[in-house]
Amino acid sequence: MQRYFVAADQFTETQVRLTGEDAHHAARVMRMKPGDKFIVSDGAARTAIAEVKDASATLVEADIVEQLSMDSEPLWSVTIAQSLPKGDKMELVIQKGTEIGAYAFAPFQSERMIVQYDGKKEAKRLERWSKIAKEAAEQSHRNRVPVIEQVQSWRELMQGIKNYDLVLFCYEREGDAAHGKGIRTAVQEWILPSERSGKQTSPANIMLIVGPEGGFTDREAAEAETTGAVLVGLGKRILRTETAGIVGLTCLLYESGEMGGA
Amino acid sequence: MQRYFVAADQFTETQVRLTGEDAHHAARVMRMKPGDKFIVSDGAARTAIAEVKDASATLVEADIVEQLSMDSEPLWSVTIAQSLPKGDKMELVIQKGTEIGAYAFAPFQSERMIVQYDGKKEAKRLERWSKIAKEAAEQSHRNRVPVIEQVQSWRELMQGIKNYDLVLFCYEREGDAAHGKGIRTAVQEWILPSERSGKQTSPANIMLIVGPEGGFTDREAAEAETTGAVLVGLGKRILRTETAGIVGLTCLLYESGEMGGA
Repeated sequence: MQRYFVAADQFTETQVRLTGEDAHHAARVMRMKPGDKFIVSDGAARTAIAEVKDASATLVEADIVEQLSMDSEPLWSVTIAQSLPKGDKMELVIQKGTEIGAYAFAPFQSERMIVQYDGKKEAKRLERWSKIAKEAAEQSHRNRVPVIEQVQSWRELMQGIKNYDLVLFCYEREGDAAHGKGIRTAVQEWILPSERSGKQTSPANIMLIVGPEGGFTDREAAEAETTGAVLVGLGKRILRTETAGIVGLTCLLYESGEMGGA
Repeated sequence: MQRYFVAADQFTETQVRLTGEDAHHAARVMRMKPGDKFIVSDGAARTAIAEVKDASATLVEADIVEQLSMDSEPLWSVTIAQSLPKGDKMELVIQKGTEIGAYAFAPFQSERMIVQYDGKKEAKRLERWSKIAKEAAEQSHRNRVPVIEQVQSWRELMQGIKNYDLVLFCYEREGDAAHGKGIRTAVQEWILPSERSGKQTSPANIMLIVGPEGGFTDREAAEAETTGAVLVGLGKRILRTETAGIVGLTCLLYESGEMGGA
C-alpha cells in the first residue's frame, strides 16, 4: 500500500488531506479514486490507513479508517555524520541509510574534503536531501523521516560528540587494516554487561562518523578520540566514503538485534 | 598505492606488463614514471609491488620488487544472486558488493521481474558489469575480482542450489515483516556447534538470493524452500531490491567475523 508522510495539521483523528506533490502523486501517478486506500503518517507518533473520498491533482481528501501501531523504527537512533563527498554520493548515503534505518544525517566539513563547500548552494541541497529522505522513508515503511542536519564545521562536530551515548569514528590508516577496534568490540565494551548477548533492550543515541574520499588526517583522528569518540575499522577491504556509512549502519543495527540479527 | 589486476600471462616471477586501459590509466591518468611503484595482482593467487621501468600510454613495463601475501578475501565466499533489476541498479549491487567482499554475482530471471530480458544486449552488459567489478576490486584492495555469471533462468538457479553449503532466500510477505528467520538464526542453525560463538574458521560457499522490485511470488518462495534454501527476512523495514543484497552480504560477513564483527 502506498505511503505518504504529511504535516501534522493535515492529519486529524478522522481525516487527512494530501496536497502539493503528494496529491499529484496519488491522483495522477497512482490514479487513486474514491474507495482506494493508502497509509498516512505524520512522521512522528501517528500512522493510519486512509480511504479516499475525493481526489484531484491538487487535493486528495480521505477518511481515517484504521489507526496503525506498527513501529518500524530501530531501538538505536543512529546518526550518520558524513564528511561532504563529491557529486551525488550524499544522495546515495541518505537514500540507502534511510531504508536501512538511520535516525539522522549530519554532513560536516573536514581537512581532506575534496568538494568546495558553498554556503549559497546549501539551502537548495538540503531541500533536495530532505525530499530523498522523505521518499525513501515512505518506500521503506518507516514511521518517521530522518532529519538532515545543517552542514557543520569540524569544530561543531567535535562539540556535538558529548550529546551522544556512543560515537564511532571510522578510521583506516593506509596499510594498517587492523587499526582500530571492530564495531562488535566497540559495542560490547560500551553496553551494559547484562545485555552483552542477544537482542538489545535499551534505546541509545549513536553517531557514526565517516571521512571524505581522502580519509581523515591523523590529527583529526587523535582529536576525535580525545573528545570521546571510539576509533573503529570496518574490516580488511577499503570501502568508498559513500559505502562506509551504509555498511557501518547495517553492522550497528544488526548488532542491536535488527536487520535479521536477533 | 594504485592497484591493477592483470591476466596471468602478463605477470611473471620478475616482471609485469600493463596494456590497454591499464597502461593508459597508469601512464596518462596517474602519470607514472620510471621508479614509481604500484600493486599488481593476477586476481587469484599472486599479489606484488612493481616498480615502473618504462611507461607509455599503450605499454607499461615494471619489475616485481616485493611479493605480497596480504589476503583481503573473506573466509566465506558469498554469491549474490540478484533477479535482474531495472535501470542501472545492477551496477550499484556489483560495485558496492565487490567493495564489501562478494565472491560472485549471479543475475537471474524471475516471475515478477520488471525488465524485459534481452539476450542480445547480454554480452555488452556482462562486459560492463565485469569492468565495474574489476575497478571496485582494485579500489577496495581485493585480491581477486568477483565473477559475474551468465544470466540464469529460474530453473537453472534452482538447480544450482545444491552446489552451495548454505542458500539464503530473502523473502518479505506484504504486512508480515516478521516472516522468515533472521540471518543470525539461519547461520546459527547451520554452522558447527563448536563455531557458534565468535569468529568463524571454516570456509563456506553461500548464496544470497534477492528478488526483483515486485518481490518473489509465494510459489517461487515455496519452490526455493523445498529445493533447500532457507527463507530469511532482513528486518522490519522494506529494502529496495538493490539495497537488500548489499545489506544481506554485510550482515553475513559481519556474522562470520569480518566487517568489524570479530
